[in-house]
Amino acid sequence: MDLLGDWWTPLVLREAFYGIRRFDEFQQELGIARNTLSDRLQRLVGEELLEKVPYQTEPVRYNYVLTDKGRDFYSVLAAIAHWGDTWLAGKEGAPITFHHHRCGNDTHGKVVCAHCGEPLTPDDTAMRMGPGFPAWMAERPEVKRRFAQQG
Amino acid sequence: MDLLGDWWTPLVLREAFYGIRRFDEFQQELGIARNTLSDRLQRLVGEELLEKVPYQTEPVRYNYVLTDKGRDFYSVLAAIAHWGDTWLAGKEGAPITFHHHRCGNDTHGKVVCAHCGEPLTPDDTAMRMGPGFPAWMAERPEVKRRFAQQG
Repeated sequence: MDLLGDWWTPLVLREAFYGIRRFDEFQQELGIARNTLSDRLQRLVGEELLEKVPYQTEPVRYNYVLTDKGRDFYSVLAAIAHWGDTWLAGKEGAPITFHHHRCGNDTHGKVVCAHCGEPLTPDDTAMRMGPGFPAWMAERPEVKRRFAQQG
Repeated sequence: MDLLGDWWTPLVLREAFYGIRRFDEFQQELGIARNTLSDRLQRLVGEELLEKVPYQTEPVRYNYVLTDKGRDFYSVLAAIAHWGDTWLAGKEGAPITFHHHRCGNDTHGKVVCAHCGEPLTPDDTAMRMGPGFPAWMAERPEVKRRFAQQG
């Protein structure tokens, strides 16, 4: 999780999905301090969610453009947005709606099991150690206990 | 997004989904400073993702238990985990797998359109102002422009 820094990061990404590409536009939309924005953009470039593409020389200026890795984060934003709509939105309703051109409906993101398509809920899903689980951690008694509780 | 604080917050929630309930267990699992953990737990209680349930008196001690709002965040964690597995995991594979008891498969979370069940991607989805979009913001020219670009 650490790569994302703080919660400004998804907000910066959301602006990128709106089509924002230039530093000044990000700054204007987010009302964020320039040095904070600069730091978050650099982090996103460093983590390869955004890339800097020059659009002018002398002085050189860049667009910040989503990479494939950054574009794939859209699904995470959609999941967060739906959770926010469910639990945080006022009685007016959702601040943002997702319109799915493909099916023609206003919609929201729904997180389902990639196998059966049913919603993934904590009641019928267990998190287990995967092949990439760090070996040294897997040996720790509290880690063993934690996963044993999961079933 | 602000309510979540920093990225420790989802990590604390993840531990809660593993079945962790006590301060000392969170502390042991996360290797986090006690004052940082205390702050994150208080924030999650304040935002009603966790609630404090006393399990002992003199001295009073609490379990930190997921509320419905907290449990519903599971889908967001599943979406983040899948993105991480796709883009961040080493060649060993995913550190954590989700096992769906309901269908019996090891799986992962997939974010789909709540209407048609197809994946929601930025190419065929537009974010639009919803009914709860703040009226004063909707009037700002840069906000109008941003949404006009979306289609």
